[in-house]
Amino acid sequence: MNQWTLPDYIEDMLPDEAVYLESLRRSILDLYQTHSYLYVIPPMLEYIESLNGNGQDMDLDTFKVVDQLTGRLMGVRADITPQVARIDAHLIQNDEVTRLSYAGSVLRTKPASFLQSREPFQIGAELYGFKGIEADLEIQTLLIKTLSTIGIQNPVFDFNHLDIFTSLIASSNMARDHLDLLYQAMQKKDKSEVISLTKSIDKKNRDALIALVSLYGDVNILKEAEKVLPQDKAIKSALQFLNQLDQALKHNQIKVSYDLSDIRGYQYHNGLVFSVYADQCYSPIALGGRYDNIGASFGRNRPATGFTMDLKNIVTLFPSGKKAKAILAPQGIDSELQNAIESLRQQGEIVAIDLFGHMNAIQNNCDRILIQDASKAWKVKTV
Amino acid sequence: MNQWTLPDYIEDMLPDEAVYLESLRRSILDLYQTHSYLYVIPPMLEYIESLNGNGQDMDLDTFKVVDQLTGRLMGVRADITPQVARIDAHLIQNDEVTRLSYAGSVLRTKPASFLQSREPFQIGAELYGFKGIEADLEIQTLLIKTLSTIGIQNPVFDFNHLDIFTSLIASSNMARDHLDLLYQAMQKKDKSEVISLTKSIDKKNRDALIALVSLYGDVNILKEAEKVLPQDKAIKSALQFLNQLDQALKHNQIKVSYDLSDIRGYQYHNGLVFSVYADQCYSPIALGGRYDNIGASFGRNRPATGFTMDLKNIVTLFPSGKKAKAILAPQGIDSELQNAIESLRQQGEIVAIDLFGHMNAIQNNCDRILIQDASKAWKVKTV
Repeated sequence: MNQWTLPDYIEDMLPDEAVYLESLRRSILDLYQTHSYLYVIPPMLEYIESLNGNGQDMDLDTFKVVDQLTGRLMGVRADITPQVARIDAHLIQNDEVTRLSYAGSVLRTKPASFLQSREPFQIGAELYGFKGIEADLEIQTLLIKTLSTIGIQNPVFDFNHLDIFTSLIASSNMARDHLDLLYQAMQKKDKSEVISLTKSIDKKNRDALIALVSLYGDVNILKEAEKVLPQDKAIKSALQFLNQLDQALKHNQIKVSYDLSDIRGYQYHNGLVFSVYADQCYSPIALGGRYDNIGASFGRNRPATGFTMDLKNIVTLFPSGKKAKAILAPQGIDSELQNAIESLRQQGEIVAIDLFGHMNAIQNNCDRILIQDASKAWKVKTV
Repeated sequence: MNQWTLPDYIEDMLPDEAVYLESLRRSILDLYQTHSYLYVIPPMLEYIESLNGNGQDMDLDTFKVVDQLTGRLMGVRADITPQVARIDAHLIQNDEVTRLSYAGSVLRTKPASFLQSREPFQIGAELYGFKGIEADLEIQTLLIKTLSTIGIQNPVFDFNHLDIFTSLIASSNMARDHLDLLYQAMQKKDKSEVISLTKSIDKKNRDALIALVSLYGDVNILKEAEKVLPQDKAIKSALQFLNQLDQALKHNQIKVSYDLSDIRGYQYHNGLVFSVYADQCYSPIALGGRYDNIGASFGRNRPATGFTMDLKNIVTLFPSGKKAKAILAPQGIDSELQNAIESLRQQGEIVAIDLFGHMNAIQNNCDRILIQDASKAWKVKTV
């Protein structure tokens, strides 16, 4: 057994990646700070009932441990959003709009895909207490600014409104297991599977569910949907909402698309949901939307919308390539040497002390050395 | 069952504390960066053998979970130092001096004391590959700068050299269980317990072990120890080392004391160890020292020294009291309003958008509002 072997989908972040992740983390949290999203740090560990109040999916993703102090079952968080909703519901007793942000590791029993980690680094922002489209637009604008901070060009925002799907299955009384299969078939756009799973549904709604699988593309899809889908009140207002959004987002540097069978995140989402894609990335780099009912299990139900992204995934997909260069300085207690070193550090320079020749400048990423000139003054010299 | 109840010794950090922790975290990591301590991010989860290669104590503190991909036992880290040693031993293949830093949460099955969290936030720095006292002094100087960054005045550095205790029990062949009891008795300075646990040890070493319990105080203790302890080579050189350290630290703004029975951290420490105390704090706020043998279990044994502190503990003990004030701005798509808001944010101001009167300035910590003056220009006004 090699004691240095890590489990699959678990990794160290070495200096280049770690420093890059840290710098993105700071820029993004600073952005959220200036937008008045208050930073909170929920714990890694909670009672399992608190973590999984809102969905079975997360339950399977969650590592469970026994609390030695009470014998009760706890879970290591697999998602931070429900924790932030709990904080809004109980700790921040404010009937007004509340904006919160967070950043931290979560653990998952299985990776989301074979390219992803079992320890994503989630960063995100949430807005509570406002039902109107202005809240959705504020969240999307903040995500657009986040992507621009990271330097991701031409992101694609892929929208859906879950009320459409929810209306179509509302009268079907499907068992949870059966519904789960239908959810999966919809997400895979597996038309034949959708056909076979909807046999018990009345023709109008069944045809609409089958049609959903093909309803993806640009804004024209919304017109198509108006023709094909039932003239249900909830469906009409969902489509109207998506049209409104399309108008409002016109002036941003993003591409917008629609996918009416993308019912990802149904564990706690409702209403508008979105997935964000970057060029040449198969998996979404950010997920967001409404989850107005998530607070209910914490005893305070109010409008909620937000987004989350895995910063570790971003750092892996878009490496920075930058490497800060250091200055190598000799060991010594000479006070002029010490002053020269401290002054460089206060200017933000990285100064590595060569402990009696135990370090090589080049191997240690130093492009300069601190050396005494003819007049015995300490000077920085390029190597 | 209240779904919002957290387990004991597990807590949320709300905005005031969270923002303060984040600002300390940044200042400290920046300090380590300029001192050429490369930032690494080890994972939350590892195989149990990797986490606990060096001590049984940590094993009891570690939450264990089963890897669903392999069926093997994994642990959630209870300490980051052994992970950083693993990174030095295997991932950074450098025979020279390596300096690493880290910051992150760890989880413990039980709190270290009834005032501490089961999720400490560890931050620290480690220096590998140099045996001399210059490495110890560099680490201590960096810790002094860390404390000064936090604003902790007059810290007390309490030193011990584990070679003294190790020499005294070297020939005793004590069983591990018995040794654990002796360790505990020494740390509690329980003289009668030490007397009873050392009956099998020869008189000279036994008398010395009993004497250790009273050997704590200022530098004069070292002279006392020279008289009382056996003239063993290892003991003489340990005392000489402590004297050297005392001389070297004379010009720093710290108090120094010695405690020859403080054998805390014997799981992986050897040689010099230290605990740092702040005024009116019973528990140490930082721990550090040598752990030259920790790399052995990862197949690469080399000199190592470093320190760690719990930043969550610091934030609880020394709250900042500072609160950033925000500007409340109205909702609107008017481009002049938008420009005014963006320009304030780019100056680092926090601007909260009042979604149609859903926010009250005072309740939301806003001391200013953005408002149109007579000439319709947007101006910041104190409320």
